[in-house]
Amino acid sequence: MVLKHEQMADEIVGIGRRVQNLKTAVDLGAIHRYVTDSQEGIRGADLIVLATPVDTYERQVREWRPWLHPGAIVTDVGSVKGTLVERVEQLLPSGIRFVGAHPIAGREKIGVAAGSLTLFRQARCILTPTATTDAVALQQIRAMWEKAGSTVLTMDPHLHDRVLGAVSHLPHVVAFGLINALTEIQRRATPEVDLLTYGGGGLRDTTRIAASSPEMWRDICVWNKDNLVSMLDDFEEQIRHLKQLIKNGDGPSIEREFERAKTVRERLR
Amino acid sequence: MVLKHEQMADEIVGIGRRVQNLKTAVDLGAIHRYVTDSQEGIRGADLIVLATPVDTYERQVREWRPWLHPGAIVTDVGSVKGTLVERVEQLLPSGIRFVGAHPIAGREKIGVAAGSLTLFRQARCILTPTATTDAVALQQIRAMWEKAGSTVLTMDPHLHDRVLGAVSHLPHVVAFGLINALTEIQRRATPEVDLLTYGGGGLRDTTRIAASSPEMWRDICVWNKDNLVSMLDDFEEQIRHLKQLIKNGDGPSIEREFERAKTVRERLR
Repeated sequence: MVLKHEQMADEIVGIGRRVQNLKTAVDLGAIHRYVTDSQEGIRGADLIVLATPVDTYERQVREWRPWLHPGAIVTDVGSVKGTLVERVEQLLPSGIRFVGAHPIAGREKIGVAAGSLTLFRQARCILTPTATTDAVALQQIRAMWEKAGSTVLTMDPHLHDRVLGAVSHLPHVVAFGLINALTEIQRRATPEVDLLTYGGGGLRDTTRIAASSPEMWRDICVWNKDNLVSMLDDFEEQIRHLKQLIKNGDGPSIEREFERAKTVRERLR
Repeated sequence: MVLKHEQMADEIVGIGRRVQNLKTAVDLGAIHRYVTDSQEGIRGADLIVLATPVDTYERQVREWRPWLHPGAIVTDVGSVKGTLVERVEQLLPSGIRFVGAHPIAGREKIGVAAGSLTLFRQARCILTPTATTDAVALQQIRAMWEKAGSTVLTMDPHLHDRVLGAVSHLPHVVAFGLINALTEIQRRATPEVDLLTYGGGGLRDTTRIAASSPEMWRDICVWNKDNLVSMLDDFEEQIRHLKQLIKNGDGPSIEREFERAKTVRERLR
């Protein structure tokens, strides 16, 4: 949508499976036209933006790499990088330049209708160049995201997965787990009332991201599983500790732990 | 503030420790005047609203019960009820009528400046009458909260603690624990960057309530500890399960669990 609005490309072609979403993309002015046959879309393209669940990258790149034209740039918007970036780099023919990108924006909604010209404004976009990344391609992708209003930074793909594992992937798993726990608690402890009707703003905020795409988050969890499992260990340790303090009725220690969290949380603006 | 604005009381007297907060209360039109000596405030009062951390209730009621005038109504705004309501009822002299109340509103802010005439509008307020609650007093407290714009419902005090334990207390402990886990992860996995600067809207929402008052939440945890410990067990079980699926790279099962959460979360409006 930004590329089209800023006239940064002669023609923007949407490639997808869901025709309805593609039609909406045309209506919203995000693309000039669409195709459902990827060969048709990839041939002659100067820039290919992968924007599907990350587990499909490998299958997709294998499918359309014969049709890439020399010098083309492939980039993505996926929430995991690390080994995924290495895998894509290995799959692409020589002469094709890959730049991993992760715009940190968007909420729990999916589909083109959830997008807007302002979605990426004031957001961060992390580019994850490797030793083999072409400097010119990196600069072009940076320029694209800056045009969208994002603050662009670069980071090692593996560090990216640790950072995002902590600030994004872990909170998502926690939110999904919290909702599933409420389902159990409803059954066990409050069968006589509908728990969810009593939820206030706290519950709503804490679990908003549990309405995120299960397909997308499945892939992120699988592709970042080593980091995520360690971080879930860390999280479980904190919950176990708090539970023990509560069980002991140890008010002063509970307050100290909450105070420690509050101090850190207040730095997050 | 609502009582004063709606002229539902001849005089509203703030009793507190922090003079600055009490002065702000006068400035904001929440009270007519204030006292720091509770005896002075309680003598002659028709209605006493307890609005301090719940662990102070017992000490306070013991302190000022000699000065209560016969027929006075005591109510509260605390987030736990259950045995706390029983305790307060036992402490009050006969002829003094107690009605437990829990307005489900307010965010992570504390102090009178965080209040407003509209804070309780469209919020639920749960009253927790017991076998000994006076029907007239219950009706008066109901009328007060309805005047504030709340939807009033009644519930057994112990059921209240199970319901709120699930939809409010558990999410708070989870949010505090998540922030403390991030502190550990920062130290262990990403010492080279400041993790919090990468947090997006998901992290911000999920952990907003970790900025809540440690003192208030300490008391809530201690007073609702039996329910909360069982619910933390349920939550840990869900997290352990998700972690195992992620460790196994079991995409279909992860997606099924996330889908289950999403379906429930979408019912929460």
